[in-house]
Amino acid sequence: MSRFLSQEAARLAPYTPGEQPTDAQYIKLNTNESPFPPSPKVLKALSRAEILKLNLYSDPTCGQLNEAIAKRYELSPEHVITGNGSDEILGFAFRAFCGEGKGVAYADITYGFYKAQTALFGLDANIIPLREDFTLNVDDYMDFPGTIVIANPNAPTGMAVPRADIQRLLEADPDRVVIVDEAYVDFGGESCVPMIFRYDNLLVVQTMSKSRSLAGGRVGFALGSAELIAALNRVKYSFNPYNVNRLSLIAGAAAVEDEAYFQKCTAAIRGNRDWAVRELEQLGFTVLPSQANFIFVKSDRISGEDLYRKLKENGILVRWFDSGRIRDFVRITIGSLDQMVALVDEVSRLLEDL
Amino acid sequence: MSRFLSQEAARLAPYTPGEQPTDAQYIKLNTNESPFPPSPKVLKALSRAEILKLNLYSDPTCGQLNEAIAKRYELSPEHVITGNGSDEILGFAFRAFCGEGKGVAYADITYGFYKAQTALFGLDANIIPLREDFTLNVDDYMDFPGTIVIANPNAPTGMAVPRADIQRLLEADPDRVVIVDEAYVDFGGESCVPMIFRYDNLLVVQTMSKSRSLAGGRVGFALGSAELIAALNRVKYSFNPYNVNRLSLIAGAAAVEDEAYFQKCTAAIRGNRDWAVRELEQLGFTVLPSQANFIFVKSDRISGEDLYRKLKENGILVRWFDSGRIRDFVRITIGSLDQMVALVDEVSRLLEDL
Repeated sequence: MSRFLSQEAARLAPYTPGEQPTDAQYIKLNTNESPFPPSPKVLKALSRAEILKLNLYSDPTCGQLNEAIAKRYELSPEHVITGNGSDEILGFAFRAFCGEGKGVAYADITYGFYKAQTALFGLDANIIPLREDFTLNVDDYMDFPGTIVIANPNAPTGMAVPRADIQRLLEADPDRVVIVDEAYVDFGGESCVPMIFRYDNLLVVQTMSKSRSLAGGRVGFALGSAELIAALNRVKYSFNPYNVNRLSLIAGAAAVEDEAYFQKCTAAIRGNRDWAVRELEQLGFTVLPSQANFIFVKSDRISGEDLYRKLKENGILVRWFDSGRIRDFVRITIGSLDQMVALVDEVSRLLEDL
Repeated sequence: MSRFLSQEAARLAPYTPGEQPTDAQYIKLNTNESPFPPSPKVLKALSRAEILKLNLYSDPTCGQLNEAIAKRYELSPEHVITGNGSDEILGFAFRAFCGEGKGVAYADITYGFYKAQTALFGLDANIIPLREDFTLNVDDYMDFPGTIVIANPNAPTGMAVPRADIQRLLEADPDRVVIVDEAYVDFGGESCVPMIFRYDNLLVVQTMSKSRSLAGGRVGFALGSAELIAALNRVKYSFNPYNVNRLSLIAGAAAVEDEAYFQKCTAAIRGNRDWAVRELEQLGFTVLPSQANFIFVKSDRISGEDLYRKLKENGILVRWFDSGRIRDFVRITIGSLDQMVALVDEVSRLLEDL
């Protein structure tokens, strides 16, 4: 370990992003991106005239983008904060609501980044196991006094928690913040956004990386009571006031305003998911019930690691987590129908060759 | 204060960015942006084809951009890290090198953001006054055991520290990190980059916001020993692995590769600065010796606050800091020659009306 590191930096647990290989052309089903390009309105909005204004700082208040998001979700802008991806927003939230004497609880199997941020802020973590069937039992969280983070739908399982369960958590302790990470909600989950006006301790985090085809634009946002949003802004203005660049502000607003394209893309993903689930089940796979743009699957005939490696050798990237009780699974992003057909064909061929 | 805030968030000292008004067309000389658009190569690089790929995540390693920066500064990519503006890079550095028992020292008059980040990470700060003439005496820092941050040239004074002084600090304690914030170095300062191979405790932070006309693109970077850069990456991967978006990666690489445009723009700013300094001095102003793209000026005939307010009323924004011994000054960004002429005309008229 470097002699220059602070003790706080020495204890970090950096996150490992999914592979982004540049050495070959893969069918990339490993990082839950959309297979569709951004809305044509994004392309139009990112005009030559806007690019020529890059010499000027972006609006630190993200005004126009926050207004567009607020309008889409029937809120006012004071209920919105935008970040450089939802990872940044989660970081703001961990700092705003957690610290000495205020720990954080999340599931043992969930988005790996929560662990990284827990270490970043030196927080006490209460890691609560999912049930054997990977469902989340909110009763396990009921008495936890710190902040609760629930990915809903969860990653990498794709499984959703009913809104009524989140509601019970919110009501059990009105002084406790519940962060619902809805990165994947647009593919079938039940959003908690309609509960924002009833519960001022509810923060909903979303992203434009999946359902709005802007992973490369880095636009995440949170919706919540004005009090929670103000707390997040305290952290933002202490860390990076101009946190969203000009072109992403423009792209984000254009994307959120194109409801028809959003509906078309998310419907296509749900359709492709249904198809892929059926096909893989016919090949003997166990597929967890997914409300996300990915599926979590395992087979008795091939290990998760072997499936990941053999698919990669044959030009298809999926994600395998070398970890505890999910080691048998691989996570497969739902891409275009062509990509899903290629995946199923390849899996089928691999199984025949065993 | 909100009942939801952690004690760490309650003690924050959020930064106030310069005004970004949308209510009127101002000659904007308040946030040190470049008056020139980004390089034509940036415009060309941000093609329709690249925009169509926004559905895919950006490269978390910032590979191509880091290579372009490394090439420009005659380093290898392991000496480079890129951030979402240099503010983010500074945040990574404060976390990587400072913490419990490892405080930070910086000048009483310098970039206000250091104070915000000191509070963010709960650090002990040693605030060291500049001399009466606003020069920085490195001997005042010689025995400080924590991390030292020096803006060079300094903001808002524009005054530079000789490289030899920084060198003395680096040699006095090889286990102490010295962060040299060279946001404004391209307008006449003496860069410490050539010393990176000699001192593994030197971190140089730069930005594309000023000299490369990309403030709205949010591209900052740090150059240093592989050991320091690895430490910054530990923090980055704990906070926001995909921290630079696709279009900014492309824009940054194109900007850093267009050396001719960079030289032309920075030379123009230096020329306009020389002109503005002469004119304001003829109007009786005291102008601190600036190596930056702004000047820090005061007049015996009008207070800093009055000058700021009257210029704003007349459509010209400059920055005034309501703080201690710099209260008499205003900071004026060096813009185009037309903008400087308009400024000098307006100042001249204001003084005549007194």
